[in-house]
Amino acid sequence: MTIAVIYGGNRLNGNTETLTKLAIQGLDVEEVYLKDYLIEPIIDKRHAEEGFSEVNDDYNSIINRNLPHDILIFSTPIYWYSMTGTMKNFIDRWSQTLKDPNYPDFKSIMASKKAYVIAVGGDQPSIKGLPMIQQFQHIFDFVGTTFEGYIIGEGNRPGDISQDLIALSATEQLRKEIQ
Amino acid sequence: MTIAVIYGGNRLNGNTETLTKLAIQGLDVEEVYLKDYLIEPIIDKRHAEEGFSEVNDDYNSIINRNLPHDILIFSTPIYWYSMTGTMKNFIDRWSQTLKDPNYPDFKSIMASKKAYVIAVGGDQPSIKGLPMIQQFQHIFDFVGTTFEGYIIGEGNRPGDISQDLIALSATEQLRKEIQ
Amino acid sequence: MTIAVIYGGNRLNGNTETLTKLAIQGLDVEEVYLKDYLIEPIIDKRHAEEGFSEVNDDYNSIINRNLPHDILIFSTPIYWYSMTGTMKNFIDRWSQTLKDPNYPDFKSIMASKKAYVIAVGGDQPSIKGLPMIQQFQHIFDFVGTTFEGYIIGEGNRPGDISQDLIALSATEQLRKEIQ
Amino acid sequence: MTIAVIYGGNRLNGNTETLTKLAIQGLDVEEVYLKDYLIEPIIDKRHAEEGFSEVNDDYNSIINRNLPHDILIFSTPIYWYSMTGTMKNFIDRWSQTLKDPNYPDFKSIMASKKAYVIAVGGDQPSIKGLPMIQQFQHIFDFVGTTFEGYIIGEGNRPGDISQDLIALSATEQLRKEIQ
Repeated sequence: MTIAVIYGGNRLNGNTETLTKLAIQGLDVEEVYLKDYLIEPIIDKRHAEEGFSEVNDDYNSIINRNLPHDILIFSTPIYWYSMTGTMKNFIDRWSQTLKDPNYPDFKSIMASKKAYVIAVGGDQPSIKGLPMIQQFQHIFDFVGTTFEGYIIGEGNRPGDISQDLIALSATEQLRKEIQ
Repeated sequence: MTIAVIYGGNRLNGNTETLTKLAIQGLDVEEVYLKDYLIEPIIDKRHAEEGFSEVNDDYNSIINRNLPHDILIFSTPIYWYSMTGTMKNFIDRWSQTLKDPNYPDFKSIMASKKAYVIAVGGDQPSIKGLPMIQQFQHIFDFVGTTFEGYIIGEGNRPGDISQDLIALSATEQLRKEIQ
Repeated sequence: MTIAVIYGGNRLNGNTETLTKLAIQGLDVEEVYLKDYLIEPIIDKRHAEEGFSEVNDDYNSIINRNLPHDILIFSTPIYWYSMTGTMKNFIDRWSQTLKDPNYPDFKSIMASKKAYVIAVGGDQPSIKGLPMIQQFQHIFDFVGTTFEGYIIGEGNRPGDISQDLIALSATEQLRKEIQ
Repeated sequence: MTIAVIYGGNRLNGNTETLTKLAIQGLDVEEVYLKDYLIEPIIDKRHAEEGFSEVNDDYNSIINRNLPHDILIFSTPIYWYSMTGTMKNFIDRWSQTLKDPNYPDFKSIMASKKAYVIAVGGDQPSIKGLPMIQQFQHIFDFVGTTFEGYIIGEGNRPGDISQDLIALSATEQLRKEIQ
């Protein structure tokens, strides 16, 4: 089993990244930092006669790096009670890939994967972050990916996450599960 | 009472836009289509010593058009069970405005406003769109905005929304409420 | 198509009942007021060797009155952000019926039905009542019932519901849908 | 700090009870098994001229055993994606206590407490149990109780919970927190 991590945060060494690094410590992992790439918002042409237009950005190259792996870890700080806009733009584009003749098996490949979510927020994340977890479940259900688990940590200032002992112990469990 | 609409969709004449136009029919409204502007994802520097860097995009001009109005209508198609990435990037940037010395009263101004959400989705939106509604509540709670109501419509192909009689009648009620 | 209403409230002529009566106005409906019957809490013996014990109460007679109908309307005031304990005890007992040799087709019969929920609450029900709606979806998914729609009204003191124009117009739509 | 546990399950030695016992291992705790008492459903007379009628059951004696403690642990198996009807009937009755002249300080006493929820379910509880967690948050918010945390375990057959390593490690953390 191989693993890819998709980082949605826009801050280097943020709490979410720190927690995620613990989860993958010692493992061989493909890491993608979305913030380092250009990902255009989707232009919704699902119902346009001409179909979607090719987009000249980094989205497909990221998809290409995700697809070979058995496990996807979505690592996102909780901004305004949800995943970051950066990560949302990435997922929005899946609608295009689902119609893209270059990716005829996108859905079935996604359906063979397992996914985890690691998220850290500052304002009661274990409660106010739950709608985001429900959304990830709906997202994974749509493409058939198995949602294996999630960790919600609490932290605001850099380093805070080291105080969240429940999140740390859950992360250690997750690491054992995926290794 | 004056009204601003913030459109988050990336398709012209989509179902969400159609429903929103019914809600504001005959009213004098400031309309902002986010897709027509450049809005950079937030670079989270809430905890950086130097603070946030000024961003050279259209975000502030949109905020300037929102702030004078008493009612904000957030109009977004439901992409992947949430607001569009475009709208999420816009809201993510509020974190910067909250620290921006040029907007010292941002939070108190937002706290004086009323908000509505109009959203249309294709996959059981009245159930699977609920986490998004809960997130909007958390967002509005954070800045103190009063969440006056929401309409979730169902539609996928262009024009579908005209079949959703419950959404249409709720929209007519909303129009009376804000006029 | 025939209709049964299951009332979960414990107050006569409450707002939820009033709203529900509008939904079924002029229709021939089987009405069950749970408060008028004895329904014991489930004694969970799903995994006991001896299985469930027969319970000497009114539960089965209510099930017998529900099963013949095509549409079930669950009408419950929102007590503490959820259905009433009375209605919950009724639904908890479904676990027994699912194992009851006298009801071998319980699940498949339930799977052929459509369900609606009508609920009225006093404390921001259109937001704080949403977890209850999500639970009904999970409940209906489990037995295969189609969740056709729901109405959440706002009201606290008797009669308040007549002020909730959005709920009233949605109820009128629902009435047309089921007639 | 002293602790009371309120058990909502109707099965002896169920998974939820097992997990809860781990959380309180070695601690001096007041334990209440709701199933062993008579708790009538609330007769909602909040708006009746005569007010609530005294109820001849065990509810008040349970409240009297809860009120002296600083920490309340609500321990409930997840039946049909929510707390048991037994526990719901108990909480529904709080509406009566809030109006009961014999408990003039009920709300302020509850507001001084911390609460935890421990719940075990069999059908994707870490996702489908989330609406219940949101409801507990609303419940605690209403009376001012601080919601300190929750553990959702997975298990169906007796003993299953011993396989849920994430829940077990979270329970161990909780035990350290409250000791």
